[in-house]
Parts: sequence; structure tokens; C-alpha cells
Amino acid sequence: MKISTDDFIDGIKSGNKRLIAKAITLVESTKPEHRNQAEELLKKILPLTGNSIRVGITGVPGAGKSTFIENFGRLAISNNKKVAVLAIDPSSAINKGSILGDKTRMEELAKEENAFIRPSPSSGFLGGVANTTFETMMICEAAGYNYILIETVGVGQSEVLVSDITDVFLFLKIIGGGDELQGIKRGIMEMVDIIFINKVEESNLQKAKNTKLELKRALDFLPAKEKNWKVPVLLGSALHNEGLNDVFQKIDDFISLKKKSNRFDEVRIQQSEKRFEYWVQEYILATMKKDSSIKEAYIHHKKNASDQISNPSTEAKLFVEKFLRDS
Amino acid sequence: MKISTDDFIDGIKSGNKRLIAKAITLVESTKPEHRNQAEELLKKILPLTGNSIRVGITGVPGAGKSTFIENFGRLAISNNKKVAVLAIDPSSAINKGSILGDKTRMEELAKEENAFIRPSPSSGFLGGVANTTFETMMICEAAGYNYILIETVGVGQSEVLVSDITDVFLFLKIIGGGDELQGIKRGIMEMVDIIFINKVEESNLQKAKNTKLELKRALDFLPAKEKNWKVPVLLGSALHNEGLNDVFQKIDDFISLKKKSNRFDEVRIQQSEKRFEYWVQEYILATMKKDSSIKEAYIHHKKNASDQISNPSTEAKLFVEKFLRDS
Repeated sequence: MKISTDDFIDGIKSGNKRLIAKAITLVESTKPEHRNQAEELLKKILPLTGNSIRVGITGVPGAGKSTFIENFGRLAISNNKKVAVLAIDPSSAINKGSILGDKTRMEELAKEENAFIRPSPSSGFLGGVANTTFETMMICEAAGYNYILIETVGVGQSEVLVSDITDVFLFLKIIGGGDELQGIKRGIMEMVDIIFINKVEESNLQKAKNTKLELKRALDFLPAKEKNWKVPVLLGSALHNEGLNDVFQKIDDFISLKKKSNRFDEVRIQQSEKRFEYWVQEYILATMKKDSSIKEAYIHHKKNASDQISNPSTEAKLFVEKFLRDS
Repeated sequence: MKISTDDFIDGIKSGNKRLIAKAITLVESTKPEHRNQAEELLKKILPLTGNSIRVGITGVPGAGKSTFIENFGRLAISNNKKVAVLAIDPSSAINKGSILGDKTRMEELAKEENAFIRPSPSSGFLGGVANTTFETMMICEAAGYNYILIETVGVGQSEVLVSDITDVFLFLKIIGGGDELQGIKRGIMEMVDIIFINKVEESNLQKAKNTKLELKRALDFLPAKEKNWKVPVLLGSALHNEGLNDVFQKIDDFISLKKKSNRFDEVRIQQSEKRFEYWVQEYILATMKKDSSIKEAYIHHKKNASDQISNPSTEAKLFVEKFLRDS
């Protein structure tokens, strides 16, 4: 049976997890009739959104992201916060679990009344890189979650997406090794606000300290992302609940700093504008893909460009003329 | 008097600098009648292009880019190469000169028969970030220039543009200081293939060596851009012609490596495809801007998004629907 928009809103407001989950499924849907209700729902809950701290979390597989999220989430809950966990890409650990049994541990967090865990959408919306994680976040915010933790795996396009919808970006690092060894995407170091070196124990403490020093040196060579903020490199063990309080505190410090300088609101407005531009492209792309003759023309002209049959700008012009004529 | 396309082609082929300059002015023009001839010209010279080594050069003002380009260019000429110098942004040193008298020194290079210097276009094409530097490069290649040196100032969007049209990217660095002190844009370190620490003298040699070590350490934390290539950090003085041979050699090594692994052609094809996608966006944007009612709608919906009147994706959808209906 179809759930009315008002029922969705009542369910979200009262924190009904079943209805929250169904609302997320609705906004993830690409079916036109779902899209209309999704847009209506999002418009109505908009005044209830924006009050969470949006935390992006990245790190290669093996960095211990799931364990971190689980125990960090429980720490936040013990501080009277409500925590929602989302993943931005299908390949992330939340969805797949890992040989170390992340799934079981994540279930500990899932048992908490004040936690909500949502696996990532199975594919990008409209077939592009766009996805509905932001819209999912809006629903969680309307349901009163204070911390939205968004996990990504540190490869591909997803960090840029996470960085574009969050307030603070956390990088989980394991000891030793340059980023290339850890398979981290180029550019990641410059998006990061806080680094947490995970899996630090008595036996590898010195190595961890060396890694910290090297990271600090590398950071000195990168321009500051946020004025007056020196990216802290923290040591700890998510598994043993060590160092998580420091992370909690640093997130707080960072958010306070941004709010004081008005950068918090400023960045969120910039993010909205960027998302608008992004969706304009996405909808235009979707229109192109919907019509098979336009799609073919796109492939044809692009191939002409790469085969050097003529200049890319000439081919682009020919394609755009056809697109605007036929769509 | 209007110059015919055939006259342009004859002039370019014979290395007539006056006609080369006029052909560049033609491809830089945004007037519709010029665009048509420009496209025709570019299409006809296409088979003559692609044979140069395309070198991007960046560094903050004060890094000594003009001196470097002048003396490096003369070195290349003494190796029987023809050298063209372009600038990608209006703010770059070629155009403005500097208090140290770069202009005068650049004129030394300009006197050379086998050098061609072209100031940057005064503004982006179509008002976007797009520009015609690639098309200018095509004309220079058709005229037989072997090295195209493209200068940029290391801030703003221009490095990405340079990186997307060149085969090798050179970063001129001055001694000491993190990149933030030198005002270098975030992400630049990850685009770079060769680093040259400039203005090294007896008196600051130790400092220069320290800077080199620090840079090497920072580079270890960044994933490799090109497989099997460790970014070399060279020391020298462009003013005193020291270390320029090393740069010449390293560029050669890098190009050889890329050609051997087929990455040279692979990257150029990727660049063509990227440029096609880029121009598609650019032409669509131009269409939007041409019609004032569409332009107004764009501003209106974007403002709705940033003012949180409704969700950015909703506003984008409304805008795209209007755009496709009215254009």
C-alpha cells in the first residue's frame, strides 16, 4: 500500500525507523511517480533539516572504518547524541562486510535505539556520479539525528562527493606506507580536516609516531583548507576505544571554529550552489541518455574527437546543436 | 582585408610569424563569422598537429618563470628546436612583465628566429573557464614548433587546464616555505612531473638541499601520477643557466618513458575526450547565457537552492525542464 507523504513526515518526526527506511528508499528511486512524491517529501521536511554535524569518513579497506564508526557512534550516543551512518558508494564496507567480521560489529551499533544504519544505494542516481546520499541525510536530520557519519572507501569520485556534503572530513590511516601503498586517491590529503592513525598498540607505537611525523611534514606542504586550522594527526585504536574521545573533541573544535568565523554557513551555502550546478548537469545528461539518437550522436562525436577526425571543440559544437534541436 | 583560410595555411606552414599571430587572433575570436573560419582552419591544419612536446610550467609570481622560460627556450633552440611560448591566463607574467624586468629578458628570446611568443588571451572563451590555448597550440604545431611552453601562475583553475593539454608539467619552486607560503593552489603537487628549485646559489645551497629533502618527503605521501616515474627535484638557477640542461634531459626521459609504455598516446586521447566533454558543457552554458530569460531562470533557481527554499536537485530539475522547453 502506498504511504502518504503526511504519513512519511509523521513517521520521520517520531523517529519510526521503518518509515525512515522507506522514505530513504523513496528518495533513492528513479521511477517518475516516486520522484514526484520524493520531491514533495523533501520540500516539506526541508525546515527540519540542517541541524546535524555532517562527518565524512574515508580510508582504504583495512583501515578499520567499520570498527571506528561503530565505536565512535557508540561514544557519541553515550554523549546523548543520535547517530546515523550512511555510505556513499556501493563498494564501501558497510554494505559488503569484511573478512574480519565488520558486519557483526556494526550490528552492535545497529542495536542502539539512537543509531540508524543505512547501507549505500546500489547505484548512482540517473546513472551518473550523482547519488541521493544528501537527500538521505536530509531525512535523517529531520528524524533528529545529530551526527551523520558518511563512509567512503577513498577511491574514485566518492571523496569529492562526500567533501561536498559534509562539514568535517576525517581520514583514517594505518601505520607506515605512503598513500600510494594504501591505494588512496590523489587529492585526498587536501580535503582532510582530521587524521586518525588507527590500530596503534604498544608494539607499534614508535612506528605510529614516525608516521605521524611524516604526515605532519607532508601536510606542511599542502595549503590550508580552513584558515586557522592545522590538521591534527591523532593516534589511537578504534577497536580498543582509544583516542576516540580526542576525535570527538577535535570535531567539536573544528565545527566551533567554522561557526565562529561564519565559514560553517558559508560553506553550506556554497555546497548548495555546487549541488544545484551538479544536478543541472546531471539532468541534462539524463535527457541526453534518454533519447537513443542523442546518445548515439554523443558517442559518435566524442569518438571523432578522440580519433582526431576533427577538433574536440568542433565536435562538441556539432553535438550540442543537434541536442538542442532534437530534445 | 580578410585573409583566406588557404592563405592562413600557407603562412602557417612557411612559418610566417605575422600570419601565425593573425591565425591565433582568429581562433581566439568569439564572433560567429570568425568562429566558422576558425573551425575550418583548425580542421584543415589538424593533420599537421600533435608533433610537439607540450610543456606546462607553473610557479608563484617571483619563482622566476619568465627568466626560466627565456633561458630554457634558448637552450632548446641551441639544440635545434623551435620553441613557442604561450600563457594560459591573463594574469601570467608573460603579459604583465614584472618589477624585475622580465619583459626585457623575454624580448631576448623573442629576437630568436626559432622562437614565437604569444601573450595570453585577454579573457576566457564564451565567458567560461574554457579558453583557446589548445587551439593556439595547434597553430604553433602546424607551424613546426617542437616545444610548446605554456605558462601559468599557479592559482585558480588554470593548472587543471594546463595539465589537461600538456604532456609534462613542470613546477618552479623557490627555496624554503610550505606551498601555502608561496600561495600555490591545492592539488598542484599531484599534477607535477618535474620540480625545479630555482634561484639556487652558493649562499643558499644548504637551504635549497633542505627544501629538496622536504619536497621529496612530501612527494612520498602523494600517489604516483605516472607509473615508474619518481618526480625529480632539480636544483639550479635559470638566471645563470645552471641546471637547465638537467630539466631538458628529464623532460626527454619522461616523454620517452611515456612513449614506451604507450601512455603518451593514451593520455592524449583521454585529453581529447575530456576536452570534448568540457566543450559540450561550455556550449550548453553559452546557450543558457545567450537567452536572457533562461539566464534569469538559472540565477533564480540557483538562489532558491542556496536560500534553502527547496532542495538543489528540485531546483535543478525545474530549471532544466524550462531550458529544454525554451531553447
